[in-house]
Order: sequence, then structure tokens, then C-alpha cells
Amino acid sequence: MAGELLDGVTSDPVRMGWMEGSPPPADRILLASRADHMRFPMIRWSYSNMRQFVPSRRVAAAGGGVAFERALDDGLGQVSFVPINGDEPITLEQSLTQAFTDGLLVLHRGKVVLERWFGVTVPETRHIAFSVTKSFVGAVAEMLVHEGRLDPAAPTSRYLPELAVSGFGDATVRQVLDMTTALDFSEDYADPDSGIGAYSAALGLTPRPVDYAGPIDLASYLPTIGKAGEHGVGFTYRTPNTEVLAWIVSRIEGKHFADVLSERLWQPLGMLGDADLIVDQAGTAFAGGGLNLRLEDLARFGEAMRMGGLGVIPEAVVERATHGGDPSHFDRNRYPQLPGWSYGSQWWISNNNRGCFSARGIHGQTLWIDPAAEMTVARFASHPTAANGANDPLSLPAWAALADVLSR
Amino acid sequence: MAGELLDGVTSDPVRMGWMEGSPPPADRILLASRADHMRFPMIRWSYSNMRQFVPSRRVAAAGGGVAFERALDDGLGQVSFVPINGDEPITLEQSLTQAFTDGLLVLHRGKVVLERWFGVTVPETRHIAFSVTKSFVGAVAEMLVHEGRLDPAAPTSRYLPELAVSGFGDATVRQVLDMTTALDFSEDYADPDSGIGAYSAALGLTPRPVDYAGPIDLASYLPTIGKAGEHGVGFTYRTPNTEVLAWIVSRIEGKHFADVLSERLWQPLGMLGDADLIVDQAGTAFAGGGLNLRLEDLARFGEAMRMGGLGVIPEAVVERATHGGDPSHFDRNRYPQLPGWSYGSQWWISNNNRGCFSARGIHGQTLWIDPAAEMTVARFASHPTAANGANDPLSLPAWAALADVLSR
Repeated sequence: MAGELLDGVTSDPVRMGWMEGSPPPADRILLASRADHMRFPMIRWSYSNMRQFVPSRRVAAAGGGVAFERALDDGLGQVSFVPINGDEPITLEQSLTQAFTDGLLVLHRGKVVLERWFGVTVPETRHIAFSVTKSFVGAVAEMLVHEGRLDPAAPTSRYLPELAVSGFGDATVRQVLDMTTALDFSEDYADPDSGIGAYSAALGLTPRPVDYAGPIDLASYLPTIGKAGEHGVGFTYRTPNTEVLAWIVSRIEGKHFADVLSERLWQPLGMLGDADLIVDQAGTAFAGGGLNLRLEDLARFGEAMRMGGLGVIPEAVVERATHGGDPSHFDRNRYPQLPGWSYGSQWWISNNNRGCFSARGIHGQTLWIDPAAEMTVARFASHPTAANGANDPLSLPAWAALADVLSR
Repeated sequence: MAGELLDGVTSDPVRMGWMEGSPPPADRILLASRADHMRFPMIRWSYSNMRQFVPSRRVAAAGGGVAFERALDDGLGQVSFVPINGDEPITLEQSLTQAFTDGLLVLHRGKVVLERWFGVTVPETRHIAFSVTKSFVGAVAEMLVHEGRLDPAAPTSRYLPELAVSGFGDATVRQVLDMTTALDFSEDYADPDSGIGAYSAALGLTPRPVDYAGPIDLASYLPTIGKAGEHGVGFTYRTPNTEVLAWIVSRIEGKHFADVLSERLWQPLGMLGDADLIVDQAGTAFAGGGLNLRLEDLARFGEAMRMGGLGVIPEAVVERATHGGDPSHFDRNRYPQLPGWSYGSQWWISNNNRGCFSARGIHGQTLWIDPAAEMTVARFASHPTAANGANDPLSLPAWAALADVLSR
């Protein structure tokens, strides 16, 4: 299926015909047993339909959610900009296809001003958010900190004694929140022998090798991660931190993380629809990246953060998530497109003069908030490359150009 | 876990502590890889949480559904009756525990008069309906017949040419609807070598043997079923008939069966919540038994049938599903507790003078409609024995006793 030759147009899942027909033709069926749902170009269909491939648990909305008002301005699609390292200007509309976008919502002052849907993704679709999930986890964890029920200075082992002998044992909750833990774990999506491979096998998002004898759930796997270096001196993006964080939250709340999300965010924020949270074989949430939600509900979370929490998320939590993290901990060589940024409370923080901050997930999942422009952008995508470095050159200047136009 | 020694009280899933804790203790975790979700007493938890174990697809409600009015009369729990083959009268309340009930709703004249929840099952729970699912499929198929888009006299192979060489090839749609097909397939849940075993392996509801080399989805499996005998002369309950029926419906509608259910029933009937429909590895609906829904939405379907379809289901469809089937096709030796009954359009029809009809699923899933008493009963259960013969002695006289009291 020579996926590498396909672009944003030719990989369109409707055009490819994935899963169409009863049954679909043999060469158009996506099988979880072949890990089709995690390989391009099939991801252009599967990322909008993840619960058909893996077990999941409901994150319940309260019902009666009200959609954002629309004040659509299709001219915004013609906003143009020069991609990072590019020569020629392109329009936002062109960039969306080039970035393998599945859905885009741009909100200005609380109203949707631009709305685009591609392929099989529609407003009701629960699209996988991947690591955008982490920022939900960060917000909920900070809510517990704010309530005095979670001590950021305490070692993780105070809450999870089973982690005492692991690399997390002497890391503080704050270090886990800000991902400054020093762990023997590499998160290189292009390297099959990296730590993320062992993590994925435990999680079970794709079939395990026939001779696999390792942990079959997250709670068995996380304590096996060792320490490498010194905690608290540098930011290194490692998904197991988020799994530990959600685990702590569930332990404190005495509830499944899906139920925590429902009670803390989905219900009080008036989300439009239930979300689907992927679970491992023991029923534990895939909190590092397993949230599947409506794009408008992602935008709603962004708007809540932009508006100081809307009485649901305490302002102190918003402040921490939007201005936290230490830029000196950020490796500028690793993130050349994010100069001066920091990572705090599971959020990506620009520290620029506009106050921009973001939730980011692989393959282009994005929540981008530009407070100065009173703008929130929510985007789902299925980019063939996992790392956001592949789409940032198209995306970051696009958001800046939109903010510029909306600020006029 | 000597499940056979546990009764309705001692097997309570809260009491057992299944899946409680973050993570649950090792001996309280239910693993799909061990098929825990299909074994008693673990089913008392899993049947209320099936999407955590298997892939599923959303059956979307329209939103804004309104709950039935409550006119609760707890005294109804004290209604007493003598179980079939029993000596002493017991109360309805006692029978619910003895039948391993998870939830019960009794409606009289459109209002809920009795409501009971047990174990981990709550109003928002999507509990597996097993073969109650078939009656939804039957209703939808009859709607297509009513619209002239499905010819009940046509052979199934007219709609599904891939079945031409199978046992279904020369069976008519009506024979499939009424399960009078003569197939080389035995549905004995207690026999691991029965046809239901091969069917289950194809479906993938439980792990396949390591050396399994058979079909991995329903569309590959169904054409392998042969013929044995003569179609149309006797009713034999075989789940693959329903899979074929749903397959025909999807082929005609050009839509996934979950979307057909949403458009034809969930949205127009104002169901309270989305349902979860289990799918096989190729994404095909498990139409013979894979619907997981709210108990009140099951009751709503029953009320629609009782009320002549409520403008959603044509009255002719209701008539066929409530008075169809040929009692002479019914094997009285096989169903000694259902004398004079028939099976038509995927419904169980009593042909008694009250006009009672029912949707039935293994382990006690029940929708019971007594038109004369203006009563609808919806029940979820997780009885250790699959076959309904195990709980009918407690259930059938209970519904009769309730109808008697409500008719006074």
C-alpha cells in the first residue's frame, strides 16, 4: 500500500475506501491483529474509529451540552503564511491538506469562526487525541494539588508504594508533572527497540509478539522502569510520567480515571458528548494518550483554560498550566521549532508575549490557545509521521497568521 | 473462585470486589485474555462493562431523550408466586436475587412502577443484551420488508451472493427471519464442540486457540455453514440466522448495522443514551448478541412495540413481530416451559390470550411485554447458566403475577 507515496489528498480515507461495504473488500479491511489501525495510510480511518480496534471505557458527559455559537468566516481559509524553512507562502486551506488534517475548529472570542472536516471525520467523531490526553491529566492532577490532596513536593512513592524501587520512587510529584524525571526510558517513535516499544507492548494497543512474556498491563509495567540520571534538572518527554500521574489521581480519588475525567471536566464543562478512553487489559486507563473525543469538546477544554477555568478549573490551576515549567529545562536542540518554550503540568508553554500554550499529541493532534488573540484552535490529524516536528513547520505559522488576522 | 457455589447474593460483584482499586488486586482483575469476562462469577461485573473487553462501535442516540415518568410502587416487590415446578411461594424481590438479576424495570401504562438495581449495574450502565439484540434486528429487517426493499420470499443469496453455496443459499429471507432454516449448526452453549464454538472463534468474543487457523470474522465464517435437512419445516434457534439478517440489512442500506440501528430506532425513539455494539475484528456488528444498552432504552423499545410502534415502527411490523411465527414449527420437547409459543421475526411469541411476546437473551436478558396488562418488563441479569430454561421457572410466573396485580 506504498503509504509513503500518498499525500494529504490521495490518502483521504474515503478515497481509499477503508472499511466500506458489508463486509469491506479484503484489501480494504483494517485488522487490529495486523496493527493496521496504527499504520499509515490506514490511520486516516482508524484514528476516527479507535474503539473498533481496542477496549475502551466511557467518559460520561452530563447531557444537554450546548454547541458553540458559529460566526463562520470562510475567508479565514485564505489566510496565508510562509511555512518554517519554506520559501513560498501557502494558504491555511492548503496547509490543512498538507498536514493530513482530519478536523479543524478555530474559535475567536468564544465563537467558531472556521470549521473544516476531512475524510471520515465528522463533528460526532471521537478522534484519538494521543498526548493531548496528557494535558487533561495535568489539569485534573493540579486540581488535586490546589485542593491540598496531592502534595507536589512529596515523592511519588508516598501515593504509590509499588513504585518505591522504580525510577519514579524518589521523584517528586512536581517532577512527574513537569516531566523532569530521569528515567531509563527512551521515547523514540521511530526506534522499535526504544522504551516506548516495551511500554506499548504492556499497554496492548497493538498485538504483542507471539513469544511475549512481559507485563500485560500498565500497573505491572511502570514499576519496571529504572532511573537514569538525576531528577529535576531537565525536561525529557516520557509518556510513563503521565501514566504515573493518572495512577496517583485514581488512587487518591478512589475512582477509575475515566470517572474522574467525567466528574471533574466532562460533566461540569458541559461537553457535547461522551468520550472513549482506551484501557489496557486490566481495565486501566491509557492516560498518556488514550482519550478519544469530539473535536468541539477539545476546543471547549481549550476555551475553559483560556477563560481562566470558567469556575470549573481553579484559576491557580490554569495559571500553573499556562505559565509553569522551567524554560532552562527545555532542550533547545531537541525542539528547534519551540524556542524559549517550557513544559509544565503536562502542557506545552510558549512563554511568548502572547501567552500562547498548547496541548500536543503525535500525528498532529493539537489544542492551541492564543490568549492575546482570544483564539483557540483545536485540530485532529493523521499525519504519517508521529513526531510533531513534521507538522509544526506548517502548523505553528498557521496559528500565528490566524491570530494576526483575528487581532486586527 | 468456586463459582458454582455462589448464589445471587454471594456472587454480587461489589461484594466480590472485581476490578476495584488502582490497579485491582491480581485475583480481582478480569482479563479478556483469560476469557474472564465470559465466566461466572466474573460475568456479574463484565456484563455491565463489556466494552472494556472487546472492540465496539457506537449506536448514537439523538440526545435530549426524556426518561419515563416514575409512579413507583415498592409494594410490587412483595408480589408472590410459585415458581414453575416449585412448591412454596416466593416474592418477586426474592426471585430477583435467585435469578442473578442486575437490573429490573417494570412499566405499567408507560410509567415505571418498579425499579431495581443490583451489584455494579446502574441506570447509566450499558449491559450486554445478548440475543435480545436479535429482536432489534428483526424489527429493522421487517421495516425493510414493509418498505418493499426486502422480499421475504426471495432467497438470501439474492442479497448476499456469497452465501449461494452455503446452507443459507436456498433459504428464503422469511425462513431466516423465523429461524426455520435447516443448517449444519448446533447451538448448545454447554457443548464446546458445537457450532456455536466455531462461531464464537470467528467472532472473537473470547481469545482464539493459539493454533487457530479458521475464519477471523463473521463474513468469512457464515458462508462455511452447510445445510442439514429441509428449510421451512421447523424452528431451530441458531444465532447465525441473525448475523445473516443483519448482513442483508447492511447490504441493502449501505451502512454499518450500528448506524442502521441509530437511524431507525435510537434517534427516532428518543433513546436516553448511546448504545455500544460489539464488533468482530473486521468491524462487522455482532448482531446476534452484541448490543449493550441502558435498561431503560430496552424498556423504551418494548413500550414502542406495545404501543403499536409509536409512529417509528410501522404497525404492520409490530403485528408481524408480535403475532408471527408458526406454533407448529416449535419443538415442545425442547421448550417445555413455553407451550404453544412460536418464534417469528426474531421475537418469542406466547400466542396466549394476553398477547404476550418477548425478546430473550442468554443469562437472563429479557424484554417481556404483556399487552393485556399494559405492562412492559425489562431485565438484565448474569445468571450462571446461559440457557433461559434455568431462569424461566422464576421469571415467567413472576411476570404473570405482576400482570395480575397490575390488571386489578
